[in-house]
Amino acid sequence: MGVDFVESRNKRLFAKKLDFKRGSVDLTHGAGGRASAQLFEELFKPAFSNPLLDAGDDQARFEGQGRMVVATDSHVVSPIIFPGGDIGALSIHGTVNDVAMAGAVPRYITAGFILEEGFALSTLQQIVESMAAAAKEAGVQIIAGDTKVVERGKGDGVFINTTGVGFIPETLETPPAATRAKPGDKILVSGSIGDHGITILSERESLPLMAPLTSDTAALHGLVADLIAAVPDVHVLRDPTRGGLATAINEICRSSNCGAELDETAIPIKRTVDAACELLGVDPLYLANEGKLIAIVSADQADAALEALKAHPLGTEAAIIGTITDDLNGFVQMVTPLGGRRMVDWLTGDPLPRIC
Amino acid sequence: MGVDFVESRNKRLFAKKLDFKRGSVDLTHGAGGRASAQLFEELFKPAFSNPLLDAGDDQARFEGQGRMVVATDSHVVSPIIFPGGDIGALSIHGTVNDVAMAGAVPRYITAGFILEEGFALSTLQQIVESMAAAAKEAGVQIIAGDTKVVERGKGDGVFINTTGVGFIPETLETPPAATRAKPGDKILVSGSIGDHGITILSERESLPLMAPLTSDTAALHGLVADLIAAVPDVHVLRDPTRGGLATAINEICRSSNCGAELDETAIPIKRTVDAACELLGVDPLYLANEGKLIAIVSADQADAALEALKAHPLGTEAAIIGTITDDLNGFVQMVTPLGGRRMVDWLTGDPLPRIC
Repeated sequence: MGVDFVESRNKRLFAKKLDFKRGSVDLTHGAGGRASAQLFEELFKPAFSNPLLDAGDDQARFEGQGRMVVATDSHVVSPIIFPGGDIGALSIHGTVNDVAMAGAVPRYITAGFILEEGFALSTLQQIVESMAAAAKEAGVQIIAGDTKVVERGKGDGVFINTTGVGFIPETLETPPAATRAKPGDKILVSGSIGDHGITILSERESLPLMAPLTSDTAALHGLVADLIAAVPDVHVLRDPTRGGLATAINEICRSSNCGAELDETAIPIKRTVDAACELLGVDPLYLANEGKLIAIVSADQADAALEALKAHPLGTEAAIIGTITDDLNGFVQMVTPLGGRRMVDWLTGDPLPRIC
Repeated sequence: MGVDFVESRNKRLFAKKLDFKRGSVDLTHGAGGRASAQLFEELFKPAFSNPLLDAGDDQARFEGQGRMVVATDSHVVSPIIFPGGDIGALSIHGTVNDVAMAGAVPRYITAGFILEEGFALSTLQQIVESMAAAAKEAGVQIIAGDTKVVERGKGDGVFINTTGVGFIPETLETPPAATRAKPGDKILVSGSIGDHGITILSERESLPLMAPLTSDTAALHGLVADLIAAVPDVHVLRDPTRGGLATAINEICRSSNCGAELDETAIPIKRTVDAACELLGVDPLYLANEGKLIAIVSADQADAALEALKAHPLGTEAAIIGTITDDLNGFVQMVTPLGGRRMVDWLTGDPLPRIC
């Protein structure tokens, strides 16, 4: 190996640029050598660029302060691109929202990619750019990452783990928690339910629909900030993702050792979503949402909370949908339009694998 | 649905216990409903139990302080169980080490599991228990997690993302960084190289070996703490995982804008590893290590650093293996036993997919 050859290789660390039009992921991109470095330099670094990431260490440093929050989610949604979003945006929104539901301001994200050999670089680029845009909008920086590649047939295109770090503002005295629901509290939802779940399901089933369905995937940090500014003592915040509204309410009741009574007529559902649910035989109460939150507040704060939610673009269809009860069995009951009652159970089984 | 039936179901949230002997993962375990909750309650929670995790929220809270560090890694090693460890222990060690290489004390871990439908619950349990043991030994708490399940043939048993958070001690004035190598600095390695990579490769090739090979997977936080106690101004710390010693040194030279000269006779390699490398035609310089570190210190601190490493059980075979040079081309050169020189390039291609 002549020195001239080595020299020219080192000055231009990568012999030629990645081909984002026709290229695909191969095993060398996950091997930790030259090809891995190139993927970082030509794709991840320009898309996510910030001083903490650009430092290029195997870890990122930041300043800690007060009460912090961390949340993690792996994203395996199929299809990876869907009406209203893609796995990239979803991977930011999902984790930003989990952090925000603690009353925290999301700040930093780490991203771990598991790519399948043969995955198109053009699709990867599209997803990475979507992540970057979602992160920018959510005010978070992607400060550390990792890429692994598995052999063809051992993965499914792309899986993305994101872990988020946020800070609870000093002004927030008692942050929301799943244990803080109290009998008499009002239950609010920030908008129509089932949009994300039914969109994914319709895509898979290639459903011929009258009206288009769109995922609600969105970052809820701003909605949470506005809500807490209006009602500082929000008892519980939760985003009803997998398992839907029904499971989230059941989880809260279990954590808080209480029951709940929901008013079926008050729960906002889009007509198109309702129609698609009928067609597919699924219950919107169990469908995932990726841009909605449940807020539980004391009865005297319910109107103020509703007003704050409705004033935000992501909460215009917010509604008060029920009341926390002192049922020690933890039952969630639904009052039907005809005045009857039925039990609302946890999700059992799985109507929708890989929804997020 | 009679109230009696619902009541009995709610009192015992799960009709029967998970069968860890004969059971397997199915899609309901990733659906976010009752089966997901059961997997958490009967496997993850008892194994990882700590107050922050047990709170059962979608995120975990902790107190921030001073200079903090975050690192993330997805683990896709194949086979998932190998001599000396498994994907569970590896997923803790890998991330603990990335945090420790910033001079930080690792404290918290999040864990994201991507399971393949049909994966044996007995194997999952074994891996989770191995993670728990590794976390305990490393002094870190697993405080948040997530489980997704993909259909048969869309994953490969189990992938684990871990993200770690640590704190840089106040007493550490200038933490190590990849940019801080200076000409004249000495390069140390904490022990023999190539052990992990060759072990994984031999397992895959079912190599008939004279002597057993064992992965070196280990948490290096204690070794780092002892080193920094003896030599507070360590310039660079890095664990040479994917890409091996050769790539890690090249990365450091690129970040610090310098070169390096390594002494081939000084680099510790086990005889068994050397023999297996010959047999398989691979170069130990490019093989992954999971329990070794590279330390770069000023020349006058090299002996003190070596002594500190050797005094720790994980550093008994530590050695000074080279010197940082002022080569602005960033060349890494190897002085051979006969006094010749050769270039040590980055890893190109991929001798070993899915090594970690």
